[in-house]
Amino acid sequence: MTSERLRRQIEFIVEIDKLKSILRQTALVDGSRRENSAEHSWHIALMAVVLAEHANAKADLLHTLKMLLIHDTVEIDAGDTFAYDEVGALDKEERENRAAQRIFGLLPADQGEEFYALWLEFEARETPESRLANAMDRMMPVLHNYYNHGGTWRRNDIEITRERVEKRVRPIDDGSHELWAFIEGLLDDAVERGMLTP
Amino acid sequence: MTSERLRRQIEFIVEIDKLKSILRQTALVDGSRRENSAEHSWHIALMAVVLAEHANAKADLLHTLKMLLIHDTVEIDAGDTFAYDEVGALDKEERENRAAQRIFGLLPADQGEEFYALWLEFEARETPESRLANAMDRMMPVLHNYYNHGGTWRRNDIEITRERVEKRVRPIDDGSHELWAFIEGLLDDAVERGMLTP
Repeated sequence: MTSERLRRQIEFIVEIDKLKSILRQTALVDGSRRENSAEHSWHIALMAVVLAEHANAKADLLHTLKMLLIHDTVEIDAGDTFAYDEVGALDKEERENRAAQRIFGLLPADQGEEFYALWLEFEARETPESRLANAMDRMMPVLHNYYNHGGTWRRNDIEITRERVEKRVRPIDDGSHELWAFIEGLLDDAVERGMLTP
Repeated sequence: MTSERLRRQIEFIVEIDKLKSILRQTALVDGSRRENSAEHSWHIALMAVVLAEHANAKADLLHTLKMLLIHDTVEIDAGDTFAYDEVGALDKEERENRAAQRIFGLLPADQGEEFYALWLEFEARETPESRLANAMDRMMPVLHNYYNHGGTWRRNDIEITRERVEKRVRPIDDGSHELWAFIEGLLDDAVERGMLTP
């Protein structure tokens, strides 16, 4: 006999498979296709394992990884809102909050509440773990675009300048001054090479 | 100035983006396409967060997650070997070991050694963390196939019977008797519904 608890856990696990069909704006490093939010979540989680030592403040790595693994699942209902989409940004919080309640609500109550709290913590960027997690999430597209000859920085529909990118990725500095210095160097270089508008 | 240590870490992070292009045999739950090893790694890591409470022996969750996040990266060089490919299985260990040495060797030595040890531990299935991690890895394709009307159990090129599936996924029992009982129930049901050959 499968317990009601396990039944709910399995339902959640099967449901989140849909995150593999949510496309981000960013392309793979080899440029072959756009990446999806599930594989992106894996990438930033493993990045956190590798780079946690550079955090400004000591962060619990397990807590950080949980946040990174769950934070994008709200996109199953809310979609991926492009970082430079000002219209989409207006109701992003509301859309994602509704999604979080439905999706984490599939789980047994104690786990659903834990995941919802982790998601809110990620969004608030106040704890050391959340700051480290957000630094990973903001750094990754810079790496993709830099190693993919400009990637989403060179779109025709939205003008993206270094200033806009810098504003967007500035939270990296709250997570790690060292990683921020590295990313600033990449942005300088991207401008110099003509991948990013000054 | 970027330190040599950080430079190597970034090189590893950019390199493992290639895991997103390694296709597994298993299809997404909605059947729309085959899944890749990066999104699969995310899925089993988050599954471990949800299901760790069912482990037979107390397992350190951070250690388990690290194993799940890195264990498939060897496929970047070695490819994904289908679970029922008897020819591919012959040199799988050798191919993957070579891959592990190259890929983890991109990292600073201490991290490369840690990751290589985690990979060996995953493969050996002897510690509580490795048993839990392997249970996740073996359970997931059963869920995919069951919710995808048979999926890779119904191929024309290789005959897959319940006996073969059961032999393949039996290590779930070493990780969790409770999850094994659940999976056995799914296999019974799959046979009854004609998704899996008895």
